[in-house]
Amino acid sequence: MGLIVQKFGGSSVADADKVRNVAGRVTDAYKEGNSVVVVVSAQGDTTDDFLVKASEINDSPSKREMDVLLSAGEQISMSLLAMAIEKMGFPVISLTGWQAGMHTNSTYSAARISTINTERIERELDMKRIVIVAGFQGINKYDDITTLGRGGSDTSAVALAAALKADKCEIYTDVDGVYTADPRIVKDAKKLEDVSYDEMLELASLGANVLHNRSVELALKYNVKLEVKSSFEKVDGTVVKEVKNVEKMLVRGVTRDNDVARISIVGIDDTPGKAFKVFSLLAKHNINVDVILQSIGRHDTKDISFTVSENQLDAALKAINENLDMIGAESVEFNKNISKVSIVGSGMVSNPGVAAMMFEALYDAHININMISTSEIKVSVLIDRDKAEDAVRAIHDKFNKYESR
Amino acid sequence: MGLIVQKFGGSSVADADKVRNVAGRVTDAYKEGNSVVVVVSAQGDTTDDFLVKASEINDSPSKREMDVLLSAGEQISMSLLAMAIEKMGFPVISLTGWQAGMHTNSTYSAARISTINTERIERELDMKRIVIVAGFQGINKYDDITTLGRGGSDTSAVALAAALKADKCEIYTDVDGVYTADPRIVKDAKKLEDVSYDEMLELASLGANVLHNRSVELALKYNVKLEVKSSFEKVDGTVVKEVKNVEKMLVRGVTRDNDVARISIVGIDDTPGKAFKVFSLLAKHNINVDVILQSIGRHDTKDISFTVSENQLDAALKAINENLDMIGAESVEFNKNISKVSIVGSGMVSNPGVAAMMFEALYDAHININMISTSEIKVSVLIDRDKAEDAVRAIHDKFNKYESR
Repeated sequence: MGLIVQKFGGSSVADADKVRNVAGRVTDAYKEGNSVVVVVSAQGDTTDDFLVKASEINDSPSKREMDVLLSAGEQISMSLLAMAIEKMGFPVISLTGWQAGMHTNSTYSAARISTINTERIERELDMKRIVIVAGFQGINKYDDITTLGRGGSDTSAVALAAALKADKCEIYTDVDGVYTADPRIVKDAKKLEDVSYDEMLELASLGANVLHNRSVELALKYNVKLEVKSSFEKVDGTVVKEVKNVEKMLVRGVTRDNDVARISIVGIDDTPGKAFKVFSLLAKHNINVDVILQSIGRHDTKDISFTVSENQLDAALKAINENLDMIGAESVEFNKNISKVSIVGSGMVSNPGVAAMMFEALYDAHININMISTSEIKVSVLIDRDKAEDAVRAIHDKFNKYESR
Repeated sequence: MGLIVQKFGGSSVADADKVRNVAGRVTDAYKEGNSVVVVVSAQGDTTDDFLVKASEINDSPSKREMDVLLSAGEQISMSLLAMAIEKMGFPVISLTGWQAGMHTNSTYSAARISTINTERIERELDMKRIVIVAGFQGINKYDDITTLGRGGSDTSAVALAAALKADKCEIYTDVDGVYTADPRIVKDAKKLEDVSYDEMLELASLGANVLHNRSVELALKYNVKLEVKSSFEKVDGTVVKEVKNVEKMLVRGVTRDNDVARISIVGIDDTPGKAFKVFSLLAKHNINVDVILQSIGRHDTKDISFTVSENQLDAALKAINENLDMIGAESVEFNKNISKVSIVGSGMVSNPGVAAMMFEALYDAHININMISTSEIKVSVLIDRDKAEDAVRAIHDKFNKYESR
C-alpha cells in the first residue's frame, strides 16, 4: 500500500482494447489499496496525425500554437482512460496539465517543469479517486499551454512522483524491461533485473528507447524509484535505482543509435579558441552536439569532427557554412550513413580492458571504427550504419561469453 | 472599423483548404481595420469520431469526462486556424475556453455561460492580435472543463459579442442566409435580407438549422446584431435585428423538423393536477417537451399528447412507464414517424387568416394533420414524416402566390 505513479505511453493506449487493458493495470494497483496517479501520452498515432494536419496548413507554425494542438492529444487519451475505469466501477478523474498544476517555463515545445502544485491531485486522491494526468504538457506564467518535448510524458511521471513523494514510479511500455541489447537484433539478449541511474542514463541517451534521459536525470535527482514494465504482460520489469553491487556484470547493455550524423570541419587554422567558436555557434542555434573529436590535419591545420542528431544536421551545416570565414576553415564534410554503437556498465570503471574487448569484437567482425568516445561507464564507437546490427551482435556475444566464463 | 466577432462552424473548418478559406475571411476583416475575435467549432467529423471512440469504451461515460474529450476538438481546430493566419503573416493567438475566461455553471455537456472575464482577450486585442477562441466550451467553478451542448459555438460567439460590446456578430455557415424554406426542398425559396429576433427564434427552434435558439435568445437579450453569412461565397447574408417594418411579408419562412417524436398518454383520470404530474416528472428527467395537446378521452378520462426530440424519446417513455400508476393512466403510445412543419412571421399577428391558409394548402395536397400548435408568430402542425417535404412545398407555394398578388 502506498502511492504509485504509473505512466503509459502512446502505444499502450492506442485503441479501445488497449485502453481497457491499461484500465485493468491501473485498477489492479488501486484494488491492492494503493493511491494511484496515472500519466498518459497521446494515443498511438495521434501526434503524427496532428503534425500532418499542421504541415498541410503551415510549414513552420509557431511553437505556441503547435503546443496547443499537440496537447489536445493527451486530453483525448486521458478522458478515454477515465471512461474505461468508470466502466469498471471505480472512482476516477482526469486532469489536463494545467488542472494538475504542472507549471513550466515558457520554452514552447521543449518546456521544463518549474513547479508542480499538487493541491488538486492530492484533494482528488483524498477522495479515493484514481487520478489521470495528461503527460507531456503544462502551463507557463502567461497561462499558455506548453509541451515538454520528446519523452515528455516520462518526465511528467517522474516529476509528479517526486512532487507527490510517491513510493514508486512505474513506466509501462511495449517492452517488458531494459535488455542487455535490443532483442530484435540480439537473440540471446537478457533482461536486466535492475540497473543504476547512471547506467540507465547512458542507456537512455544511447538509443535504448525505453526511458527518456530527462526523466532518469530527474529520478536520480529526487531519488524516485523507477520501474520499467510491460503494459501487456504481467511480468517483472527492470528496476532503476541506486545499485550497490555492480561487480556481477561488466557490461550492462549494448546499444545502437541510428539517429546520428557526423560533421567534419576540415583545415581549421591551428590557433587557440577555434573549438570554442565552433561549439558556441552551434549552442547559439540550439544544436546539441554529442561525440566530439579533434585531430591534426595537414599544413598546420586541424580537423574537428562531431555528431548531431539527424534532424539537426541541416541547421548545423547551415550555421557552419555561413560562418566558415569566421571559423577560418577550408571545408565542411558530413556523413549521415553512420550509427553509434555503445556499451554501458558501471563495472567497467574498475576494468580498463573493457574498451579493448569491444574493439577486438569489432575487429573480429571486420567492422571499421570511425570515431571513438568514452566516459567512465560507457564506450561509444561510430561505424557505418549497415554494419551496426552486426556490431551489436558481435559485441554482445563477446561480453556474454566473457561474463559466463 | 470596429470590433467584430466571427463564428465558423465545423463544416467551415473541415479540412486544410477550408481552414485557409476561413483564415482569408478573418484577415479580410482585420485588414479593413477591425478588431477581430473568431469563435471556431471542432473540425467537421471530429466530434462524431470522439463519440465513436468513447462508445467503444463506455456506453454511458460521465458527462464530465465526455466534456474533457469533446473540448479537445476545438483545441485542434483553433490552433490550426491560428497556424493558417500565421502563415499569411498576421498576428494571431488561439485561446481555449478557460483561457478566454468563459465561465459556466457546472451542468456538464449542457453548461450555461455565467460570466465572461474578457481581460485576456482584450489584452490580446490591444496588442493588435486576431484572437481565436474555442467555441462550445468553458470552465466551471471547480476549474473543470464544461461544454455548452448543441449549438454551443453560436452561443459562445454571441455571448462574447455581448461581453466585448462588439459591433456585430457574424455567424458563418454552409448556407448563405436564412431562407423562406429549405432550398433543397423548395426550388423557389428566397433568401431573407433581414429577420427579427422573434422570427429567428421561431425559425431556429423549428429546425431551420442555421442558428441555435439559445444564441438568438442571447442576442435578443443583449441586443447583439447578428448576421448569418456563407463561409464560402462572398455575398450578403441575413441580418437578425429588431425589424420594424414587418408589413411586407405575412410569412417569413416555412420550416420542417424531423427531430420530433410524439408520445400519447391515454386514459388519464380526469382529476386536477395530472398535467402537472406528467410534465414535472419529465422536467425532473431534463426532458424538453415541445407541442402539448390535451384531449378528452372515453369514460371520463383524458389523453395528453406531446412531442419530444427523438433522442429523448426512450428516456421519456421510461420515466412515464415507471410512473404510470402515480399518473393514473391506462397506457402510453408513441410515434416516431412524424415531422413538424411550421410557418413563421411577425406579420401573422394581425392577420388571423394565416393559419387557415396553411391548413388549406395541406388539405389541397391531401396531407392529414396530426396535431396543431400555434403562437403569436408561428403555426406548427405535426404530419406523417413521408409527407413533410410535400407539405413544405405546398405551404410555401400557397403563401408565395398570396404575397406576390
